[in-house]
Amino acid sequence: MKKNVQYVGSYQKSAPMDFKWYVTGFVDGEGCFSVSFSMRAKLKTGIEVRPSFSVSQNRRSLAVLKDIQNYFKCGGIRYSKYDQTYKYEVRSIADLRKSVIPHFEKYQLQTSKAEDFVKFSWICDQISASRHLNNDVLAEIIEKAYSMNNLSKRKYTKEKLLKVAGKKKI
Amino acid sequence: MKKNVQYVGSYQKSAPMDFKWYVTGFVDGEGCFSVSFSMRAKLKTGIEVRPSFSVSQNRRSLAVLKDIQNYFKCGGIRYSKYDQTYKYEVRSIADLRKSVIPHFEKYQLQTSKAEDFVKFSWICDQISASRHLNNDVLAEIIEKAYSMNNLSKRKYTKEKLLKVAGKKKI
Repeated sequence: MKKNVQYVGSYQKSAPMDFKWYVTGFVDGEGCFSVSFSMRAKLKTGIEVRPSFSVSQNRRSLAVLKDIQNYFKCGGIRYSKYDQTYKYEVRSIADLRKSVIPHFEKYQLQTSKAEDFVKFSWICDQISASRHLNNDVLAEIIEKAYSMNNLSKRKYTKEKLLKVAGKKKI
Repeated sequence: MKKNVQYVGSYQKSAPMDFKWYVTGFVDGEGCFSVSFSMRAKLKTGIEVRPSFSVSQNRRSLAVLKDIQNYFKCGGIRYSKYDQTYKYEVRSIADLRKSVIPHFEKYQLQTSKAEDFVKFSWICDQISASRHLNNDVLAEIIEKAYSMNNLSKRKYTKEKLLKVAGKKKI
């Protein structure tokens, strides 16, 4: 955590940090719950489902991403050439269900991201129980994922994925 | 605050909210401290200095902006056609110095926005004490404002403002 910022002319003593609620606020402002899909011919359903929790910052604020990584005790930080930011990201279903999801159940999001989180959490549950290998559940996962407020570009249209999910008999 | 989000399959009881640290996290993620300038021939220095603290959200998250407004007990919320978001904004120097600045002195920002905040707070102090009517202080305000990590478009170049600030003899 940044400890040596000089507040010239400060009237208020700094208060001890409640990092848990700070994280929830930070993620409400800047974090992202998303679910992406890849075509994988070798998989039973033909489609790989990849949930991801991420927070991005510029280089000057890299320390905060490291604090968040230490807090969740999982995930990695990588540089994204595309938008020239650093991204803290958790992709492992086990880590998401063990660390990330319980945090946001307890310290709840206040923006519309709360709705994305509910869908995200449900999708992680399905994958964890291997229910995403069922055509109908996979179709529901695709519907839910595409109803999330994701600003990043999609590789496939929802219709294309649903078509693949429906075609392959499992 | 959003109270009726259903967490289906939740394992964690929700914790009582620490709104102060939530706000600091939220602003670290999404908030903005900025200082803009307008040419005003009638003013002594020819330049008006306008600090602004703001947070933007989409319509679905308007409730959080209202919570933040209630917390700071000042500022307004308006719809921005330009980027189709709602913006909570505080522009009054008195309100900034009474409510907003003391909050962030006590519940300190952790990202590079902390550096912007120190500059912002100093500029508000100068305006409050009418020191911005002095050419040299005004030039310093312009330099500091243009070194802040502001992503919005500037109406004037720094050089243009410094030229106007230097020309007018006060």
